[in-house]
Amino acid sequence: MNKDGTFNVRKIGAPGNIRDTYQSLIIMTWAKFFALTFIFIMVLNVLFALAYVFIGVEHLVGDKEGDLWQNLTEAFFFSFQTFTTVGYGHISPVGKLTNFVSVIESATGLMVFAIITGLLYGRFSRPSTRLLFSEKALIAPYKDGWALMFRVVNLRKNTLLELEASVAMTIHVKEGNENKRKYYRLNLEISKIEFFPATWTIVHPIDDKSPFNSLDLNNLAKEDLEIVIQLKAFDDTFSQHVHSRYSYEGSEVVVGAKFKPASSVDDNGNLTIPLDEFHDYKIVTFSK
Amino acid sequence: MNKDGTFNVRKIGAPGNIRDTYQSLIIMTWAKFFALTFIFIMVLNVLFALAYVFIGVEHLVGDKEGDLWQNLTEAFFFSFQTFTTVGYGHISPVGKLTNFVSVIESATGLMVFAIITGLLYGRFSRPSTRLLFSEKALIAPYKDGWALMFRVVNLRKNTLLELEASVAMTIHVKEGNENKRKYYRLNLEISKIEFFPATWTIVHPIDDKSPFNSLDLNNLAKEDLEIVIQLKAFDDTFSQHVHSRYSYEGSEVVVGAKFKPASSVDDNGNLTIPLDEFHDYKIVTFSK
Amino acid sequence: MNKDGTFNVRKIGAPGNIRDTYQSLIIMTWAKFFALTFIFIMVLNVLFALAYVFIGVEHLVGDKEGDLWQNLTEAFFFSFQTFTTVGYGHISPVGKLTNFVSVIESATGLMVFAIITGLLYGRFSRPSTRLLFSEKALIAPYKDGWALMFRVVNLRKNTLLELEASVAMTIHVKEGNENKRKYYRLNLEISKIEFFPATWTIVHPIDDKSPFNSLDLNNLAKEDLEIVIQLKAFDDTFSQHVHSRYSYEGSEVVVGAKFKPASSVDDNGNLTIPLDEFHDYKIVTFSK
Amino acid sequence: MNKDGTFNVRKIGAPGNIRDTYQSLIIMTWAKFFALTFIFIMVLNVLFALAYVFIGVEHLVGDKEGDLWQNLTEAFFFSFQTFTTVGYGHISPVGKLTNFVSVIESATGLMVFAIITGLLYGRFSRPSTRLLFSEKALIAPYKDGWALMFRVVNLRKNTLLELEASVAMTIHVKEGNENKRKYYRLNLEISKIEFFPATWTIVHPIDDKSPFNSLDLNNLAKEDLEIVIQLKAFDDTFSQHVHSRYSYEGSEVVVGAKFKPASSVDDNGNLTIPLDEFHDYKIVTFSK
Repeated sequence: MNKDGTFNVRKIGAPGNIRDTYQSLIIMTWAKFFALTFIFIMVLNVLFALAYVFIGVEHLVGDKEGDLWQNLTEAFFFSFQTFTTVGYGHISPVGKLTNFVSVIESATGLMVFAIITGLLYGRFSRPSTRLLFSEKALIAPYKDGWALMFRVVNLRKNTLLELEASVAMTIHVKEGNENKRKYYRLNLEISKIEFFPATWTIVHPIDDKSPFNSLDLNNLAKEDLEIVIQLKAFDDTFSQHVHSRYSYEGSEVVVGAKFKPASSVDDNGNLTIPLDEFHDYKIVTFSK
Repeated sequence: MNKDGTFNVRKIGAPGNIRDTYQSLIIMTWAKFFALTFIFIMVLNVLFALAYVFIGVEHLVGDKEGDLWQNLTEAFFFSFQTFTTVGYGHISPVGKLTNFVSVIESATGLMVFAIITGLLYGRFSRPSTRLLFSEKALIAPYKDGWALMFRVVNLRKNTLLELEASVAMTIHVKEGNENKRKYYRLNLEISKIEFFPATWTIVHPIDDKSPFNSLDLNNLAKEDLEIVIQLKAFDDTFSQHVHSRYSYEGSEVVVGAKFKPASSVDDNGNLTIPLDEFHDYKIVTFSK
Repeated sequence: MNKDGTFNVRKIGAPGNIRDTYQSLIIMTWAKFFALTFIFIMVLNVLFALAYVFIGVEHLVGDKEGDLWQNLTEAFFFSFQTFTTVGYGHISPVGKLTNFVSVIESATGLMVFAIITGLLYGRFSRPSTRLLFSEKALIAPYKDGWALMFRVVNLRKNTLLELEASVAMTIHVKEGNENKRKYYRLNLEISKIEFFPATWTIVHPIDDKSPFNSLDLNNLAKEDLEIVIQLKAFDDTFSQHVHSRYSYEGSEVVVGAKFKPASSVDDNGNLTIPLDEFHDYKIVTFSK
Repeated sequence: MNKDGTFNVRKIGAPGNIRDTYQSLIIMTWAKFFALTFIFIMVLNVLFALAYVFIGVEHLVGDKEGDLWQNLTEAFFFSFQTFTTVGYGHISPVGKLTNFVSVIESATGLMVFAIITGLLYGRFSRPSTRLLFSEKALIAPYKDGWALMFRVVNLRKNTLLELEASVAMTIHVKEGNENKRKYYRLNLEISKIEFFPATWTIVHPIDDKSPFNSLDLNNLAKEDLEIVIQLKAFDDTFSQHVHSRYSYEGSEVVVGAKFKPASSVDDNGNLTIPLDEFHDYKIVTFSK
């Protein structure tokens, strides 16, 4: 899994589709989105400007005729005034063909901005979370033995409810000549909490059933393993379920360490979470 | 069931309703949608143009009067400039009635484009999946016996989570003179997976409880039976549950075959899925 | 419960709220919605027209001055051309104050149509079902005894999945001087189905635990009782859960009757549902 | 927890993000939203007006040149006519640079109003409930002992279904020098109801397992405790799940009191709820 929550799987030969285009336009960065929108609108207007020049600039009354470049520029400005329906009127279409093209263009313009409105709303309203995971997962003391632990905090002010975690471990093994990826679900001490106002430390006890039990924990960083986390929550602001994924590689697991407290309660019972100390842990002696 | 996931049931005499119109406009193809939109806008503008001509073209200042056809064309262009609110102004309304009609038209135009904006967004944002099901379902070796198997892959780049399958079989039987459709749920080896980055082979073991146990598997193609699949998943991009349906008829079940591997892992542990080999299977000896 | 699924409960003294206004605008009929929209836009424009006349019609260049009524009419048309941003320009604002009012008006106009766009989309996309319930609920023969039965069919072409029913009975009783409403949940033979392509007959067996067991079924019509049904389903087209409610009063329960078949299967295994025969039942001898 | 349902937790050092901006714009009050929108549009137009003056007012044909202030005002009005696409045309751009700026401005204007449309819809359609909780929670007689009770009513006309409550109690304790917040879930007599047409009294019996059992109930007001309530429901109008939170502090619990009836049934079986009597209770002798 990549750090942004997508999976590292290559599918070869999948055909395109208009719905995928929509999905891409929703997912891409804002910079790319605005650049694409700008280019698309410009190209459309240049094409319409070419059409007006082709029909004849003499049908654009108010336009000062000149050389081809001059005509194209003026036609482009007229085109844009039509496309955005600003329609000042100091240049106006005369003749059936020019009028008809401007009819098509103004309708096209309204449609294009309708689509952009929808895309902007789709982009903004897309559910998302901003959770901060501890940089490292720890193998920390737990009851009489050890447990895999990491913690998470909500960076937003909104309230997440019914937080549910499911954690898995995949490991790359060689069986003879064959490469395989094995997959294990990890049992959690608590896998669901109702409120999430502060931080949550997720704990997988390394007991007999744990796949970590049979690994050499001192050499975890050398294994091609990955701890894959999925968090599900209900976002109260938008009334929808949100999912968040994260992963730790073997080299991101610190063996023999425990987290420092993430929050402190003062004498009035108020809770404070200093986020710059969120990743802090201290080393403990590990033996197993 | 049809291949697009709709059911092959005829209901006679259901009355229409405005909400059904919305649903149709959301479901129809893009070509049909744009054609309908275009025709609707054109017809509206022709009606308004007729109104302007009926009131009198002399109230459209800037308009060059001519024969009826000439007047209608000019009125149509003025109408469109009003409808799209481009309003160049080289033709402008004079007189109370013409002004009032243009007031109504510009408001109508804005409303119509508001509805189109909504419809476009509704169409784009409609949840959908693009899953590829194996062309054939197989009766393949499984443990000591046989199992019905088919597989599925996500053609999109987005991540589907919490994939859940439910599979049923319906068979058309004649009991005396009466035609009946019997319905059986098929037990699955695994009916829910948490992540779906690669492919999933869905397995129904043909054991004592399976309705296939009492059928002549060698003559499956002759039965009027259908295997109906419903997949439910959570689409992380749009934070909504999506459903997908598919079906296999008796003639699409290959008895005595097993799938070739759908994916390969390289030495670095990376997974590749060649989609052009997705449907591939090899024949095995079947006996029961 | 009323037939439209709302409950017949009066709450006295609930204060209003802007969000309730939105909800009302979404729920009201289309006729009322368009009438309100029309009136609202007209009133706004009359107010702006009054403002222009108050500032002075001489600041509306191109306008022909006349008596007050004439001025108001012209100002109204200018106002509307500004409000809808059609802006022909044959009347245009001159002077700071008139210009400023037109600035405010054009922005207001765009906002108003933005809100209308949102409301239209909200109205259209509101989840809904069109289920047809049988006109009567029947007390019909069932196994060795009797059961309360009614049936339901989806009038839309869309597919409903995971249909779930819950049925309750409330009865008005007098205990001494006190009026009470008692509430019983009714057990169903089957309360959930996965697909809903055809019809579904919902069955409540009248056994020892049923509240109907202690009623005089022959005099059901005289009781002030109500059978309240709630159906929950997943609408595949819009990917959302929809709910539908319905109720039968005592007088709508036919004691001693059974439904005629709702569908027929032909020799090719195709199912047909004639909706005009959907409510049909035949009387059977009732004794208990 | 605060009375508006947010939690009283301070997180220090969380970085900002564009998505959080969207969330803020959705959550803020209407007054603040409209003020921000107004200022944003005004600032944008002043900037464009400055650009037009900088290029040269002689390129705005129809504009009457004057002193800088005069020019700026005229340029501002032209800018607004471009931004809103009203484009009267009595002032129109001439020259490549001025034309190009007006091209950018009209496109910007359409984009800005597209975003505003989306935000308005996002604000309106945000799920919400308007539940009224009783001002006080009561320790009231219940069976042979006592129970914590409070009640809730829906202030809206819409129907809430599948109402589900979960109640917790947190208490601030000092263990030696350390401040701690202990958290207990409270068992409820009934934690889920299907319909919610009237009122619901939520009851937590104070039995052996209840954390209240070990507290001195007569001195509850002095404890730094909080009863935290979460209600989940399905809003039938918008087909979405809504959540509502509320809390009572120790001083808001009345020990030894019971609620007066919230509703009355008349002789025709109709239910009426007078909301002004909703908080009413009467004192009873408390002893434990």
